[in-house]
Amino acid sequence: MTSHLMPGNASESDLPRMAQRYLQVRAQTLALAAPLSDADCQVQSMPDASPTKWHLAHVTWFFETFVLERFEPGFAPFHPAFRVLFNSYYQTVGAQHPRPQRGLITRPDMADIRAYRAQVDERVARLLHHLSPSNPHTAEVLSVMELGLQHEQQHQELLLTDIKHLLSCNPIWPTYLPACSPIDLPAESPVYPPVHSPARHPTPHASVADATPLAWVNFEAALANVGHAGTGFAFDNECPRHPAWVQPFTLANRLITHGEWLAFVADGGYTHPQWWMSAGWEWVCANRVTAPQYWLPTGNGGWTTFTLHGRVPIDPHTPMVHVNWFEADACARWLGHQQGLPLRLPTEAEWEHAANCQATHWAEHGNFLESGALHPVPLASRAQGLAQMGGDAWEWTGSSYLPHPGYQPWAGAVGEYNGKFMVNQMVLKGGSCATPRAHIRASYRNFFPTDARWQFTGVRLARSL
Amino acid sequence: MTSHLMPGNASESDLPRMAQRYLQVRAQTLALAAPLSDADCQVQSMPDASPTKWHLAHVTWFFETFVLERFEPGFAPFHPAFRVLFNSYYQTVGAQHPRPQRGLITRPDMADIRAYRAQVDERVARLLHHLSPSNPHTAEVLSVMELGLQHEQQHQELLLTDIKHLLSCNPIWPTYLPACSPIDLPAESPVYPPVHSPARHPTPHASVADATPLAWVNFEAALANVGHAGTGFAFDNECPRHPAWVQPFTLANRLITHGEWLAFVADGGYTHPQWWMSAGWEWVCANRVTAPQYWLPTGNGGWTTFTLHGRVPIDPHTPMVHVNWFEADACARWLGHQQGLPLRLPTEAEWEHAANCQATHWAEHGNFLESGALHPVPLASRAQGLAQMGGDAWEWTGSSYLPHPGYQPWAGAVGEYNGKFMVNQMVLKGGSCATPRAHIRASYRNFFPTDARWQFTGVRLARSL
Amino acid sequence: MTSHLMPGNASESDLPRMAQRYLQVRAQTLALAAPLSDADCQVQSMPDASPTKWHLAHVTWFFETFVLERFEPGFAPFHPAFRVLFNSYYQTVGAQHPRPQRGLITRPDMADIRAYRAQVDERVARLLHHLSPSNPHTAEVLSVMELGLQHEQQHQELLLTDIKHLLSCNPIWPTYLPACSPIDLPAESPVYPPVHSPARHPTPHASVADATPLAWVNFEAALANVGHAGTGFAFDNECPRHPAWVQPFTLANRLITHGEWLAFVADGGYTHPQWWMSAGWEWVCANRVTAPQYWLPTGNGGWTTFTLHGRVPIDPHTPMVHVNWFEADACARWLGHQQGLPLRLPTEAEWEHAANCQATHWAEHGNFLESGALHPVPLASRAQGLAQMGGDAWEWTGSSYLPHPGYQPWAGAVGEYNGKFMVNQMVLKGGSCATPRAHIRASYRNFFPTDARWQFTGVRLARSL
Amino acid sequence: MTSHLMPGNASESDLPRMAQRYLQVRAQTLALAAPLSDADCQVQSMPDASPTKWHLAHVTWFFETFVLERFEPGFAPFHPAFRVLFNSYYQTVGAQHPRPQRGLITRPDMADIRAYRAQVDERVARLLHHLSPSNPHTAEVLSVMELGLQHEQQHQELLLTDIKHLLSCNPIWPTYLPACSPIDLPAESPVYPPVHSPARHPTPHASVADATPLAWVNFEAALANVGHAGTGFAFDNECPRHPAWVQPFTLANRLITHGEWLAFVADGGYTHPQWWMSAGWEWVCANRVTAPQYWLPTGNGGWTTFTLHGRVPIDPHTPMVHVNWFEADACARWLGHQQGLPLRLPTEAEWEHAANCQATHWAEHGNFLESGALHPVPLASRAQGLAQMGGDAWEWTGSSYLPHPGYQPWAGAVGEYNGKFMVNQMVLKGGSCATPRAHIRASYRNFFPTDARWQFTGVRLARSL
Repeated sequence: MTSHLMPGNASESDLPRMAQRYLQVRAQTLALAAPLSDADCQVQSMPDASPTKWHLAHVTWFFETFVLERFEPGFAPFHPAFRVLFNSYYQTVGAQHPRPQRGLITRPDMADIRAYRAQVDERVARLLHHLSPSNPHTAEVLSVMELGLQHEQQHQELLLTDIKHLLSCNPIWPTYLPACSPIDLPAESPVYPPVHSPARHPTPHASVADATPLAWVNFEAALANVGHAGTGFAFDNECPRHPAWVQPFTLANRLITHGEWLAFVADGGYTHPQWWMSAGWEWVCANRVTAPQYWLPTGNGGWTTFTLHGRVPIDPHTPMVHVNWFEADACARWLGHQQGLPLRLPTEAEWEHAANCQATHWAEHGNFLESGALHPVPLASRAQGLAQMGGDAWEWTGSSYLPHPGYQPWAGAVGEYNGKFMVNQMVLKGGSCATPRAHIRASYRNFFPTDARWQFTGVRLARSL
Repeated sequence: MTSHLMPGNASESDLPRMAQRYLQVRAQTLALAAPLSDADCQVQSMPDASPTKWHLAHVTWFFETFVLERFEPGFAPFHPAFRVLFNSYYQTVGAQHPRPQRGLITRPDMADIRAYRAQVDERVARLLHHLSPSNPHTAEVLSVMELGLQHEQQHQELLLTDIKHLLSCNPIWPTYLPACSPIDLPAESPVYPPVHSPARHPTPHASVADATPLAWVNFEAALANVGHAGTGFAFDNECPRHPAWVQPFTLANRLITHGEWLAFVADGGYTHPQWWMSAGWEWVCANRVTAPQYWLPTGNGGWTTFTLHGRVPIDPHTPMVHVNWFEADACARWLGHQQGLPLRLPTEAEWEHAANCQATHWAEHGNFLESGALHPVPLASRAQGLAQMGGDAWEWTGSSYLPHPGYQPWAGAVGEYNGKFMVNQMVLKGGSCATPRAHIRASYRNFFPTDARWQFTGVRLARSL
Repeated sequence: MTSHLMPGNASESDLPRMAQRYLQVRAQTLALAAPLSDADCQVQSMPDASPTKWHLAHVTWFFETFVLERFEPGFAPFHPAFRVLFNSYYQTVGAQHPRPQRGLITRPDMADIRAYRAQVDERVARLLHHLSPSNPHTAEVLSVMELGLQHEQQHQELLLTDIKHLLSCNPIWPTYLPACSPIDLPAESPVYPPVHSPARHPTPHASVADATPLAWVNFEAALANVGHAGTGFAFDNECPRHPAWVQPFTLANRLITHGEWLAFVADGGYTHPQWWMSAGWEWVCANRVTAPQYWLPTGNGGWTTFTLHGRVPIDPHTPMVHVNWFEADACARWLGHQQGLPLRLPTEAEWEHAANCQATHWAEHGNFLESGALHPVPLASRAQGLAQMGGDAWEWTGSSYLPHPGYQPWAGAVGEYNGKFMVNQMVLKGGSCATPRAHIRASYRNFFPTDARWQFTGVRLARSL
Repeated sequence: MTSHLMPGNASESDLPRMAQRYLQVRAQTLALAAPLSDADCQVQSMPDASPTKWHLAHVTWFFETFVLERFEPGFAPFHPAFRVLFNSYYQTVGAQHPRPQRGLITRPDMADIRAYRAQVDERVARLLHHLSPSNPHTAEVLSVMELGLQHEQQHQELLLTDIKHLLSCNPIWPTYLPACSPIDLPAESPVYPPVHSPARHPTPHASVADATPLAWVNFEAALANVGHAGTGFAFDNECPRHPAWVQPFTLANRLITHGEWLAFVADGGYTHPQWWMSAGWEWVCANRVTAPQYWLPTGNGGWTTFTLHGRVPIDPHTPMVHVNWFEADACARWLGHQQGLPLRLPTEAEWEHAANCQATHWAEHGNFLESGALHPVPLASRAQGLAQMGGDAWEWTGSSYLPHPGYQPWAGAVGEYNGKFMVNQMVLKGGSCATPRAHIRASYRNFFPTDARWQFTGVRLARSL
């Protein structure tokens, strides 16, 4: 494998471990779909989102196409139509079913897709079982398997954000999982009781503690190292590791909270063009935006938001999520004006440099998928240093998603994984409450367009010194 | 009840009969949904169509709102949210869930909706059972019940045309009910086998007989009577019966067939502006239309179409369906050019006058929903007179859907049923293979915009003498 | 000439008279463009409108193409590109420059177009001069000449409505011709003085008289004659004359006024769906319509409107104009509700029958183009019978623009003049303050889609008896 | 003035020199509009472009608003409406006339705008004449004057690219200035002779020399200085100068030519997704792009393009222009595939570092506006080193237009000049054949979205070493 290929960084002794991890990751995906009905799994709420059923099938298609089709002796497809139906965007593999119509495919149904998963799982297990460490393909199989697992973890997060968006379109506001707090019913947008849901439980998230005050952590100018280092897995877009000059800067110790955003809204943040980029202000006006995604006024001056546990009153101490880049940038400018400082979003290099400089691991104690909260949580104590760098909310940066210097996409179809999206998007760092903990790295590059709101995306402030 | 109200034309002795008919119509609706999975019932394939689940709930909402809420002692709604979720367009009743988002309501689920239907059915039965013939409300209850049943029959047809459209968006082309003929697989649009469908059955519709030749039935000038007469049910838009002068004209003895449409396509019908209205040609160009809805080329010069029994080769002898008004008008003009005659669509008055002039009832032997064909069928024999006036295909007329002279909408919310749609639509007559036989009348006025293609809509030719 | 051809109804002795009329009509068109600068003549303010320059060239193209090209010996085009640039929609003649881009053709410039007009005028005059009454083509030449003049008169009206729309897009609200009244400056929409316009003149239209009260003129049921009769010119769409049964009805004696519309607006007419057709309410909501075209609030509770004489305060006694069919229909329903009567728009047959029944000619004393008012005027006195049937405002009918029974388009390219627009439009009758008096007939059929507002279109009420 | 304000870098002795430069720049703008008719100056061909008349007025508005209004004693506006009509996007100054409707303002006319320019010029001259070197405002006046002149130079280029786009929409393809070569008439898109243009002149640009071969100039890794240095004028977006680490790279010695682009088109460049970014391929498909802007096939396998001298055959040796970022990126990838090298666009830091490293000034001998060519020209001789860095074509970089580290917008309304556009655009460097020579710097940052094609934008290749 040359440097243009995917890294063959799994040693042959990893075969049993890979088989084990495969089972775990695959089971995790099914567990995330378990609370949903077949109808929930079927529907696509907008072109950017995909049905749960499609996620379940597509990640399986990935293993079928890139592992079984290439390495299984006597390969035959589970169903010939699936090659088209569940191909996301790999032109090299062939045609794709149009993305906005994924929700129209009612057949195969969920039983078919569960059978598809089971069969592919069994065949992958058999393939790994019969693979000899001395087989010349073993390194490549392991390498592609690793990519498939990382890919499936990405879709675990998307499954949650997509189903959240779908449920939010329903005026009875169903829960993905119950854990609700009492709700102030807004006068103009009645919250109906769920159809079959007799009781409500007190929320575990009610926050009584004061928020951790905003503080600053300074960094000197440096020729920082950016990008992936070491032998573990990384996507091609994290490579190559390279030097990048960083001017002196300072980072906020924590994420911006819902309470700070309430103040932005209350001060007319969505009505004054001076806080916004020109394109951001156009977005506000064209979409008549008056508040963040999922917020609704209660009618008595308060606000509720929608979570995977249903509609809840806003807790001012939780980190802000579901804001797009335009909103993140505008609120940073407004907060800077409040404090008389030129506040802004951090650059990717600044963020990554800061994460790498931390004494304790930046992602330790992070609120990731495994916490089960499925929502950001308030800072539990007066944290030291940079808190919340990992988990809770993806952090928008001021950096465009562009190739690292010397970047080369992987060879073959998997080369379409990242490289062809490197324009007109912004980089996000650190993972969220819906990201598997094992999936994240300091060099990890998430990316979305500047108007995307349905991910768990938030804001950490920065400033040039 | 004044003439502005719905007709109270049901006698008190009709109470048991109404209870019986109610059960029959309601059961028929559920039977139509029976072949579908919960996922099939959930999805909305375009803004004009509705999910099966929504149809099942909305027709129930109609009885709950217009019968139970008004006449049931101690009425309480099944669920408060349903008033909004399943209101189609009755502004008088209150807010409506946005039509294009009907498919996003995954909860209530199908089990909830079945429970909703069962409870409303039981309560309606109880209401009718306890209603005394001498009760001053009985006539009105029966009148609204009748309207509810007619309404539900309309949705039975829409349920079929909407699910057909949904299934047609799936490249594996599932069947609503099996009854397939062998298919010529098109090279560029592969037809995959259904996911779990081992065998194919020979089609019952293969036509070996010659088509009945086109012939003409003449009518003299007359002051015709148009609109509903008699004591049976009719919608407000069929009233009042009124005189209308009709110039001498002639009507084709049968519907235009798929074979005639194949000739239109083969002659470049979709590429020459001279056959089209200006707005029709704009529709062709803007949508790059090259063939009727559901047609696909086989790759060897043939065509297939999509039916509720799956994709099948085109049978030239079956009446043409799924053409919009622009296409119907253009093909009539093209056929006129072929024959050297100024052919056109009939007017509503011509059609209704002709139907009323028939010796045997115009709808006798018609291919309606009850035949189970769910598709037009070839004329079985050399029929005499006007054939296929009832069933097979709704017949586009050259008449706009406007109020009859002296029209007054019903009083109250049901006055929104028809009147507010009387602009920018064209009238269709006669019912289709998806229309319940008991639902149709000569005065019945169906209506759709000139670009609607997903109904079972076809063409009968006419000419001025 | 058969009945399918244009009528050859001009006698050979008409040659000098035709030459004279040609000069008059052509000069009238230039006179209408005279107050405009070259830049005014260049710009297209919306796809439905055309630049003045295009109007001037297109009507000339009509004579060049349909008269000179067919009948002039040794014909050569003025410029080969004009065949495409100034063809409106005649597919038979060849390609057309895209309608929405007519305003982008800065060259040829106005001097070129004036030269084009002068040359064509001279060649047409020469052709007519050398045409012998015994020439077998003379009748056809005269027939096409007549069509060309009628066509040019239609564009005279469009020139005025199109330039009015263009000027209305300019926040300094220039005048086409001065005749302004003092204006209440609205606080939020400042009216700036024209760039070079030192003085304002008192308006000649200030109305002090009371409005003529609304009264009704009754008509009995009749088999009315509809369509063109006699030997004068008529468009193909007015033919053939045919019987049409009309039920008893009554017509309002005058047009609806600005004052009545002010009451509709004040009563929330644009905020209550119950007055509107479903499609009309969608139009209101989608376009956030709160008032008629050209109206602006003054800030102190009053309203101004835009006229060809600039922005003026609303005179409640002038007939209402610039309302589309949706608005006309809704206001009629609202006025009916106010009066407890089912008021509606008249049908075309009712209107035409009523016009033909009048003792004095219905169009006598009408406020047509020749009055120079270029705006509707209040009824001068307590008029008897049906007033304002001709001129002031085109009257929306409740009839769709469909072919008369037995309609056949003219043969050849001129057959594209009317027939291909006979769908999805409504008929208007009677002419407006921008229509040449000689252009109008009782059988004349103007037509526009239900959302068109920029013509001088108004409302006369009707009711079934 | 603090660092947040515009630089007051003009010394007081510059007053007479500023008055002189003001006259020169203002006269240059009028000279560019001189070949155009009033109608040419009036029309807006697309929302991104502006009418010439608007450019002439807006740059004058800039001096009136930012110089006269602030510093002229007894200031009164030329016309109160101009504050709105000719404000481009300065929210701080007040409302703006909607950009897509700039072409609808036919009044004020060109005579008014010429009078506006003359009056403002006279008042500015008077202000400068009476300004004493010791006046405390002098430095600021000079600073804003300088900004106004730089601003007007930017609009000189836009005036040319906008008028080129307008003329290209006219199927008779008028010339801005004559200098035409004979044209192969394409069969399907006839080129008509200009309306009044008897003769054609031989082109001065016919190229017989071979193209300069592509060669590479290498650069070592460095901590480069990026951004503006020195005391001359620079926009705020060029500041502050800052270090940026650059990895080893190599730059092509010249721009990509029309000939190389012909090979890309011939090889199916616009039909294969593998060369394109995902968003680029969507752009190709959505717009059915098959060739660069302004190209038309001749019908015999050749191509023509549209220039300010009219439609001409493509000269393969001239640098390519009018490609957007998607096209530039795709063609670079395709050329890399042809040569077996990972070719790409240079980053902004690479380009600027390379320009600063040149022994002779990078912009010397550049084909700028002053050459009068108004089109790129072939490399005259076998140039040494990096040729064509200045002029001919703006060079797309692989860098997003983001703030330099430590960037602060100027204080006040002029702070809206650049900063609020720093998202979703890409940086271009070096100037074009329509850029005034004196306007350009190595640190100059031009920026456009990735789909913009109507500027003189081209490609220089780069590669990581």
